[in-house]
Amino acid sequence: MPLRPLPLGATKITGGFWRERQQTNRTSTIPAAGLRLEEAGTLGNFRRTTGGFVGKLFADTDVYKWLEAVAWEQAREPAEDLASWQTTASALVAAAQEPDGYLNTHTRLALDGRRFGDLEKGHELYCAGHLLQAAVAQSRATGDRTLLEVACRFADLLCKTFGPGRMEGVDGHPLIEMALVDLYRETGTASYLELASYFVEARGRGLLVPPGHHGPAYFQDHLPVREVRTLAGHAVRALYLASGATDVAVETGDAELLDALRETWQTMVDSQTYLTGGVGSRWYGEAFGDPYELPPDTAYCETCAAIASVQWSWRLLLATGDSKYADLIERTLYNAVISGVSLSGESFFYVNTLKVRQHAYADDQRSAAAGRQPWYGTACCPPNVMRTLSSLDQLVATSDSDGVQVHLYAPAVVTAELPVGRVGFEVATRYPWHGRVTVTITETPSEPWTLGLRIPAWAGGASVSGPLRRSWSVGDQVVLELPVEARRTEPDDRIDSVRGCVAIERGPLVYCFEQVDQDVVLDETAVVAGDLVERERPELLGGVTTVEVPGRDGPLTAIPYYAWANRTVGPMTVWVDAR
Amino acid sequence: MPLRPLPLGATKITGGFWRERQQTNRTSTIPAAGLRLEEAGTLGNFRRTTGGFVGKLFADTDVYKWLEAVAWEQAREPAEDLASWQTTASALVAAAQEPDGYLNTHTRLALDGRRFGDLEKGHELYCAGHLLQAAVAQSRATGDRTLLEVACRFADLLCKTFGPGRMEGVDGHPLIEMALVDLYRETGTASYLELASYFVEARGRGLLVPPGHHGPAYFQDHLPVREVRTLAGHAVRALYLASGATDVAVETGDAELLDALRETWQTMVDSQTYLTGGVGSRWYGEAFGDPYELPPDTAYCETCAAIASVQWSWRLLLATGDSKYADLIERTLYNAVISGVSLSGESFFYVNTLKVRQHAYADDQRSAAAGRQPWYGTACCPPNVMRTLSSLDQLVATSDSDGVQVHLYAPAVVTAELPVGRVGFEVATRYPWHGRVTVTITETPSEPWTLGLRIPAWAGGASVSGPLRRSWSVGDQVVLELPVEARRTEPDDRIDSVRGCVAIERGPLVYCFEQVDQDVVLDETAVVAGDLVERERPELLGGVTTVEVPGRDGPLTAIPYYAWANRTVGPMTVWVDAR
Repeated sequence: MPLRPLPLGATKITGGFWRERQQTNRTSTIPAAGLRLEEAGTLGNFRRTTGGFVGKLFADTDVYKWLEAVAWEQAREPAEDLASWQTTASALVAAAQEPDGYLNTHTRLALDGRRFGDLEKGHELYCAGHLLQAAVAQSRATGDRTLLEVACRFADLLCKTFGPGRMEGVDGHPLIEMALVDLYRETGTASYLELASYFVEARGRGLLVPPGHHGPAYFQDHLPVREVRTLAGHAVRALYLASGATDVAVETGDAELLDALRETWQTMVDSQTYLTGGVGSRWYGEAFGDPYELPPDTAYCETCAAIASVQWSWRLLLATGDSKYADLIERTLYNAVISGVSLSGESFFYVNTLKVRQHAYADDQRSAAAGRQPWYGTACCPPNVMRTLSSLDQLVATSDSDGVQVHLYAPAVVTAELPVGRVGFEVATRYPWHGRVTVTITETPSEPWTLGLRIPAWAGGASVSGPLRRSWSVGDQVVLELPVEARRTEPDDRIDSVRGCVAIERGPLVYCFEQVDQDVVLDETAVVAGDLVERERPELLGGVTTVEVPGRDGPLTAIPYYAWANRTVGPMTVWVDAR
Repeated sequence: MPLRPLPLGATKITGGFWRERQQTNRTSTIPAAGLRLEEAGTLGNFRRTTGGFVGKLFADTDVYKWLEAVAWEQAREPAEDLASWQTTASALVAAAQEPDGYLNTHTRLALDGRRFGDLEKGHELYCAGHLLQAAVAQSRATGDRTLLEVACRFADLLCKTFGPGRMEGVDGHPLIEMALVDLYRETGTASYLELASYFVEARGRGLLVPPGHHGPAYFQDHLPVREVRTLAGHAVRALYLASGATDVAVETGDAELLDALRETWQTMVDSQTYLTGGVGSRWYGEAFGDPYELPPDTAYCETCAAIASVQWSWRLLLATGDSKYADLIERTLYNAVISGVSLSGESFFYVNTLKVRQHAYADDQRSAAAGRQPWYGTACCPPNVMRTLSSLDQLVATSDSDGVQVHLYAPAVVTAELPVGRVGFEVATRYPWHGRVTVTITETPSEPWTLGLRIPAWAGGASVSGPLRRSWSVGDQVVLELPVEARRTEPDDRIDSVRGCVAIERGPLVYCFEQVDQDVVLDETAVVAGDLVERERPELLGGVTTVEVPGRDGPLTAIPYYAWANRTVGPMTVWVDAR
């Protein structure tokens, strides 16, 4: 891999925009979720051996994702409450494991223990995957191997059960692929990688029977992964599979597979990704649309799909070193991911639309027009946001033989062991509100190394105060100036629904117009040429910079998209008529 | 009612565009459907008393709608094969009736006879409704009262079962409302009208538990009908209910309810209806979108919803005499309804999209990109098209105390009993290809009466050769000239996805561009100003007039929308960039 992740703890976000969100996640979101998991009966499923299953059949994963967040939080800063939750919940999970390693409370409580009878919809390997991921997080973050042992026993059983000459099959919901590679990386057990590789290669060969109206693309069985060039079907499934396939390609040195995935990613970015980084435009089937099918009003953009996109881009960033992947990570995190959680951390969007019309009718709790909800019957998104924020420090920087690369700008401390020796630096910035990023070297050998600073694709005119490859001394400073000033963005001409419109962006933030800030009816107005006026508003929405845009019927005020629907839920649009 | 339907047989389409489609319906579609109903096991469900139910739980309705078509066909022209199918299938249905009048093969074969346990999804009253409609059609068209007796016994049971002080409930899928009014009109039994009225009034009061993710609008339980002003939720359910409510309002003289329905219809036409007359823009929930949410590429526009829209507009036309309702009927029939069946009559669209992109991926058999299908697992649309075409003669004209109103232009003979006496006339026309409509009086008293000829809203500049209220003589002719020449249509500015586009219309026909007719890539071109060139192409698609439109990269050729996907299935668009 051209780039390598830094060890856990080597990058720490110490303040600023993301740390605020992480603290809310820690103090509000994660504790509340623990209560929700009790209230919803999700933890209760692990306690009982009889008496019926409560919730959706994949509810176990809500616990696993929450446990993953609890683990990563302890790497950020250990705490007794976190450790106590971890111990209690992990013990419950461990106790629910069958003697041969199998573990799934739905199978136990609702299916009389009958396993793998419905790979299409049963989600058994999907649940296993989230268990494995939680276990790896727990082991890495806390050294607690309780879940890791559970995970290995389950993974060993899967290796004995699935594969050529054994049970031929794949899960209707991918995830197990990348989870097995995670576990392989943590344990070195080659059979986990082999099984992951099998699951990747076995897709697109008709092992699954398409469900109901949907075709095989719904669960990624329409084509062998290496033949895909344009994503189709259920977005979260597609992106978890792409992430796992990337892991397998990297670990097995499969250049052909990696090239196919890179090409597919590019098509996704060029023609299937919203300005916010949101993906999966269709409500029906929660699916990718055809290229350039990106309507703002009916955008689905599931929070989980945005998170999965970040996971995939991170893998491709490591595998290639190309900063375009970090660009998409940044765009997606600042917009499509954190729009999924309220500023208070207590409610969530499942769907991250780009436009709510006047008179929008919400007949579904996922509808943006219904506002963020405290929890969902299918509660995949909330704990997915939690584990993403808890592990965000890990995405700040990477290393290679020549130096360190900073991908996300936040107040942070970074250390890395390079071939030339141990290096360390601090990042100071008020990004994304201000464009200045100051890096101060805190530890360095005398030999030269390279401090890589990502220049986002939107940042034409960025400047750096000096050479980035040099012999550094402690106290050396580099100042990067990113032009975060508000700008107008025009859409690709092939996207029907925003033709003739513009959007406002400022640095990595996509802006939107909420009706509550305007004097005119949003649906019936337009912006005109003229200066964009920025205003720092520390009292507004946790502190934001607003942008005033000249409009046909008077000025319009834009706020960061992620912050919408935190005052009232009403009409909103990212794209606005500009003719 | 200001206008009254003419008795069955008083209007006959004798040639031209619609008769061609009716003949294909009779000779190809209806016989093939009889075979499909056998192959799919749908008729078999009626034969068995044990052994399991085959198909979707509302499959009985496929038989009922087909029987309705078979009945109306015999009013067009009796035939032995039709009579034989009717006798055989009606006997099967009659034999499946329980002693107390109940009839539903799913209940018998799959639910051990347990009735009305799932009004939300069980479709028992929906199935009953189609039985009642088939029975009324059979009685009116053929005098055969076999099904009518079955229907009355069932309806009597429903009257004993449902209502205030009895079982309080409504069906998750409306239809029974208008079917009960039909049966009331046929039999004069007041309790049928009373039950229809109860079912209309009981909605929107929380009697149904919303299913899964959907809210109560999905099955029209979100608001009392008389409080609705904008349609939401499942489109076919919404429109069948609106039709039934209109029937109830008319029969009970409920002006408040009728006014609410008229206002709701106007909102639908102004902001929720595609250029083709298609309605129900959302795949998800097969539902109405918010006002102005009318994307062409992801348009759902179920064939059944278009048919339901015609049924509702017909009821409002009779109830008000306002020809805007007939305008929508014409638009919908020529475009959104008959696009649902191939020119050969042998395959069907469930979804009538307005745009298929390059590289569109079809992961659903309903997707337009998959082409028309010979049948569907949910086979609601095909027999709905059949009964619509078989009964189309009935929509040609109406009468009032002063005369006769012609609503649809086709070669036809029309007779009516007016207060002044019996009148008759022939219509000769090559409409919709040519705009001249010649009416020749064949029978008239000497007293004056009015010949009403609808001038469609698109037909500015239409001319009529003489006064329409006068003392007529046999042989008198009136010539109406409708300007059917091709025209450009611009969209409402509030529809995002077609902003800056134009569509081509010609007379009542909406046109589209199929990739197969173009030399350039449709998704990447635009039209420019200039003359529209019409060409009569008798050899093409059963005989059409094409329109050549000047384009940025060379001329583009448009064909009538209804005829698309009859050669190959590829990219197609109704709206084309015009900037």
